[in-house]
Amino acid sequence: MTPSSTSLSRTETLSLLALTVACVAVLANTFQGDGEPLIASLALSGIAYAATFAMIRWLGPTFIKAGLKGVDMAKPYRKEIPECMGALCAAVYLLVVIIFIPFPFYKDIVAATSGGGNRDVVLHVEHVQQGRFLHRFPHSKLASYLSAIISLQSIALLGIGDDLFDIRWRHKFFIPAFASIPLLVVYFVDFGVTSIVIPIPLQPYLGELFDLGALYYVYMAGVAIFSPNSINILAGINGIEVTQSIVIALLLAINDCLYLLTPYPHPATDSHLFSLYFLLPFLGVSFALLWHNWYPARVFVGDTYCYFAGMVFVVVSILGHFSKTLVLLLIPQIFNFVYSTPQLFGLVPCPRHRLPRFNARTGLLEPSVTPWTAERQPKPLVAWGLRLLGKLGLLKITLDQEGKIVETSNFTILNLWLVWRGPLREDRLALEITAMQTAIGMFGLFVRHGLALLVFKEDNWSVTMGRW
Amino acid sequence: MTPSSTSLSRTETLSLLALTVACVAVLANTFQGDGEPLIASLALSGIAYAATFAMIRWLGPTFIKAGLKGVDMAKPYRKEIPECMGALCAAVYLLVVIIFIPFPFYKDIVAATSGGGNRDVVLHVEHVQQGRFLHRFPHSKLASYLSAIISLQSIALLGIGDDLFDIRWRHKFFIPAFASIPLLVVYFVDFGVTSIVIPIPLQPYLGELFDLGALYYVYMAGVAIFSPNSINILAGINGIEVTQSIVIALLLAINDCLYLLTPYPHPATDSHLFSLYFLLPFLGVSFALLWHNWYPARVFVGDTYCYFAGMVFVVVSILGHFSKTLVLLLIPQIFNFVYSTPQLFGLVPCPRHRLPRFNARTGLLEPSVTPWTAERQPKPLVAWGLRLLGKLGLLKITLDQEGKIVETSNFTILNLWLVWRGPLREDRLALEITAMQTAIGMFGLFVRHGLALLVFKEDNWSVTMGRW
Repeated sequence: MTPSSTSLSRTETLSLLALTVACVAVLANTFQGDGEPLIASLALSGIAYAATFAMIRWLGPTFIKAGLKGVDMAKPYRKEIPECMGALCAAVYLLVVIIFIPFPFYKDIVAATSGGGNRDVVLHVEHVQQGRFLHRFPHSKLASYLSAIISLQSIALLGIGDDLFDIRWRHKFFIPAFASIPLLVVYFVDFGVTSIVIPIPLQPYLGELFDLGALYYVYMAGVAIFSPNSINILAGINGIEVTQSIVIALLLAINDCLYLLTPYPHPATDSHLFSLYFLLPFLGVSFALLWHNWYPARVFVGDTYCYFAGMVFVVVSILGHFSKTLVLLLIPQIFNFVYSTPQLFGLVPCPRHRLPRFNARTGLLEPSVTPWTAERQPKPLVAWGLRLLGKLGLLKITLDQEGKIVETSNFTILNLWLVWRGPLREDRLALEITAMQTAIGMFGLFVRHGLALLVFKEDNWSVTMGRW
Repeated sequence: MTPSSTSLSRTETLSLLALTVACVAVLANTFQGDGEPLIASLALSGIAYAATFAMIRWLGPTFIKAGLKGVDMAKPYRKEIPECMGALCAAVYLLVVIIFIPFPFYKDIVAATSGGGNRDVVLHVEHVQQGRFLHRFPHSKLASYLSAIISLQSIALLGIGDDLFDIRWRHKFFIPAFASIPLLVVYFVDFGVTSIVIPIPLQPYLGELFDLGALYYVYMAGVAIFSPNSINILAGINGIEVTQSIVIALLLAINDCLYLLTPYPHPATDSHLFSLYFLLPFLGVSFALLWHNWYPARVFVGDTYCYFAGMVFVVVSILGHFSKTLVLLLIPQIFNFVYSTPQLFGLVPCPRHRLPRFNARTGLLEPSVTPWTAERQPKPLVAWGLRLLGKLGLLKITLDQEGKIVETSNFTILNLWLVWRGPLREDRLALEITAMQTAIGMFGLFVRHGLALLVFKEDNWSVTMGRW
């Protein structure tokens, strides 16, 4: 590595310092007033950006020395660059959300104790609620907040384990399941609501509320397993892991803001503030990572980042009770997963890497393919399916003169996009996929808020029992 | 490695299976009654032992493949064995203490919500307290419990980082400081008592309670930084890291039991139950690790284990308000640290490794030494100090005919013990140090409970405001 790529330039140092000083000033200012948590969260997110930016640059060589490195296969030159930089993002993020705790939570002043830390002589300080943005959380939300941190820390630990030990995907599929245990256990002892609101057309049959019981935990575990994995499999070109995560985080944050800007205090205000407190620092560390991971990438993000990002979304949407909104924003990921199933479930051979093929002559990416020999053709039903997908424009399929299949493009949304759009440069492909993710997400949010009125009695914007 | 060393023998498999089945049965039985948390904790600790034992055996080759390996320098043969096995202990431990959460905590049944997860329609189930062992924690203790988990998870993450990146000791000294932030932040918002009880002789001058304010946090951070580091520097021979941790954990557990066996309910019962819930699974995973790390070691524990063990003690003693008792039990570690300062602070050159020297001819360990040349003698004051220590029997010092210092033994308690006792085999040295730790710890507990009556108004055994 050239020295310039592992140290900050003069401009970068000055910009990051200016940002940090400004954020610290804003943070110090929140102590003057009542300590507005949302402002403090924004300031801490700025500091998180600066810290992540600098640490990614400084610690790159250390990561390479420790064996955390990889080669970019879509470049003409084959240079080793640091891998698993998501671990740094996770570390900075976790420190920030932990330091943030005193801002949104009431402080119980315990004046004295009868010994052994008993709370029998408690002196509560009464806080006056001044407007909605100054609003602080009740103490009971602290357990939820902490359980979210534990789940995020767990996924970071397991993600690093995955990056170190290269776990097989059959096993790593369940990594998020382990990490969601703290979230679900604390949900169980701390909240435990397992009933859902029934859409109006079904209410005559099922009643207004339907208690899913244990099934609700299965549903939450399902979301927790799907979200991190779905981001982890929509990967393979520079920047795509980070941009899709940023788009989803921004859309969730916009959705949160809708609840804060209603003309009257919305009953779900707390849940959405809670969500913002987790999303803003995530955006901070992600933008710093994107700066280094965008084409041409100088660092890789590692599975750690993908899992971590997916888990941030799980945590805010489960604790904020809008997991169905998250599912709407994950439509491209759901499509990519469903589209991938022929290879994931072994109907079509699945090579170790399915990322698009780099054509060194043109410098563009082309769909990567699975080759079929004359001896080893797909089973008749699979062959029929492949031909059908080819006719529908959902697969590039090459036949020989006898009509035997020679090769089929790999089943990922990135390859499919290249089948549709022709060869593209890596950053162009990432941009287009990101634009598609943004458009579908915006449409999803529109549908969610526009149509919710038809399917449920009222939208969540008005006082309702709906829990999206 | 021979295949036998990476798989369980038939006897081991059967024993571990039997233990697991028995523990699961006990665990299932606690659901029948009122779910006695202490019994459940014991059963989960048994399962933790079995799981750690098996995983250490199975995952050894994976660790070696990922570069987490080391060579035992005190053996005639130089074989690479897996390093950083403390990470496995930490992972199993964390999973167990998370799964344990529903046992000691009341379940708030929330019947319905007005939307967005508000708790306005809450239906509390009243539990009847039946005897002391069936006693469950109030919900407010959940935040403390979760903050302890976050601190332990943080130290595991940072410890793994240290094992991977080989951080310099000047920097790694502060790793526990970062990990203690969650503990202190939640202590601040959740409890916030910063006053200490003044010993009777000083009460006329300072009053009964003295509010340390911010200094109390400095004190807690000090304990949190010292405990993990002090265990990490009393290391270097097979088993010593684990045995000293087991001894301290057992003594803390005995101290806890004293409070549970009083004839009347002690006000600090909750704090000491809390402590046991964290110590029992720690003992479970530690015994499994000791089995593999005892002389001749088949795995190394890594800095991760030392930090993790030290943090377990910090967490239980700070949240249980008996940090002074912990300090009593760390006397050998404190001695080792103070004794090490000449080398840690650079008065005497400090080689990379200070562990005792293995004499391949005798198979015994001898004190390792720092050589001094005739040109590079210590400064006069340091030389005087070294000679004084030599006369007091606290250092092995070799002089040449001119009275110049040729070599001095390295400043660790392990080397000093060898200076006193002569060459010892590695396991004998570990046993003797462990016996010494046990004896001093037992004496410390005796002093603490016997003399507390003189120094404070009453011992904690009776109702008092004392917080050790």
